[in-house]
Amino acid sequence: MHFIQKEIQLRPYARGFHLITSEVLEHFPDLSAITTGQLQVFIKHTSASLTINENADPTVRMDFESHFNQMIPENATYYKHTYEGPDDMPAHIKASVLGSSIQIPITNGKPNLGTWQGIYLCEHRDYGGSRRLVLTAWGI
Amino acid sequence: MHFIQKEIQLRPYARGFHLITSEVLEHFPDLSAITTGQLQVFIKHTSASLTINENADPTVRMDFESHFNQMIPENATYYKHTYEGPDDMPAHIKASVLGSSIQIPITNGKPNLGTWQGIYLCEHRDYGGSRRLVLTAWGI
Amino acid sequence: MHFIQKEIQLRPYARGFHLITSEVLEHFPDLSAITTGQLQVFIKHTSASLTINENADPTVRMDFESHFNQMIPENATYYKHTYEGPDDMPAHIKASVLGSSIQIPITNGKPNLGTWQGIYLCEHRDYGGSRRLVLTAWGI
Repeated sequence: MHFIQKEIQLRPYARGFHLITSEVLEHFPDLSAITTGQLQVFIKHTSASLTINENADPTVRMDFESHFNQMIPENATYYKHTYEGPDDMPAHIKASVLGSSIQIPITNGKPNLGTWQGIYLCEHRDYGGSRRLVLTAWGI
Repeated sequence: MHFIQKEIQLRPYARGFHLITSEVLEHFPDLSAITTGQLQVFIKHTSASLTINENADPTVRMDFESHFNQMIPENATYYKHTYEGPDDMPAHIKASVLGSSIQIPITNGKPNLGTWQGIYLCEHRDYGGSRRLVLTAWGI
Repeated sequence: MHFIQKEIQLRPYARGFHLITSEVLEHFPDLSAITTGQLQVFIKHTSASLTINENADPTVRMDFESHFNQMIPENATYYKHTYEGPDDMPAHIKASVLGSSIQIPITNGKPNLGTWQGIYLCEHRDYGGSRRLVLTAWGI
């Protein structure tokens, strides 16, 4: 039984959706020791999130940003939590809609993703800074 | 290898978003035995959900309730599943948007949450009653 | 410690929300060997997703489809990723809102779901074809 964990800090990303598959995995060569297992990536923040989606065309990530800004807008009249700026409360809601972790099966030492799947960092703040992730892998 | 599981019942909560981090963890002192692991909290219902978000300002939780009521409204003309009351169908949809479980890394016997992260019970029904959770922790 | 994994292919489903609990579990009798554990179901696609919701009334699943089509519409003026058809970009966004995996506690050899909970395949494309899932169970 393997149980491996590492906490890493990403470089700051601009507001938007970013492909971070390679950046995450290069921190975690330890995966190769696991034949059958699971990899969890957890983000220690409440205004940025993680998801799995299309890893090829950058316009997909742009459309995610456009649609989330429409579906969860800034300056809604009913927001009470406004003192951290107009991007703050929508960032919290977006983070919960997308989620604070993703989890991928490991098969023969590698994340068993579909051909078109990649890991997105979803940065919902205008200036979110460096985000911390906890990577945990377990298996046999 | 540790693998610990416990089923608990929460007290009833009003419709809305509620911080339950302490209530959950006090049921599960067993976590302290795990150096490196994972904690899953699973809700056995389809009209309430769990998420991780900001643990400090109560207006964040109020704004979640306001926004979810806007994004997934009652009495939409296209709802067919209406016989359990106007709050029922939106509750199901909200539950799937937020999710039925959260999962947190365990590091040195404690949930490795960010400073501002807490566990929310999201009660989407007007009278949802007592909700059942399954807590599972595993690790070394 | 048990760690079991299997990759399966579902039959093609029409666009919409479909109950697949039985279809998934009949592929995985291995669960019965696990007293305390977890089952993850992961979908290897970015335009279909998985969620847990009401397992009884088919109108719930119809209302999910209606509401998601409203909340994440086709032909939004801001979509740039349009060359794979009007159902493609909304499918990616819906997939991330609902998520690419679900995870259920295992108790005494069975998924410990609530009475009304079932596993949904959420097919967001008009012609999504056969979808691949990775089933992973672990525990003691």
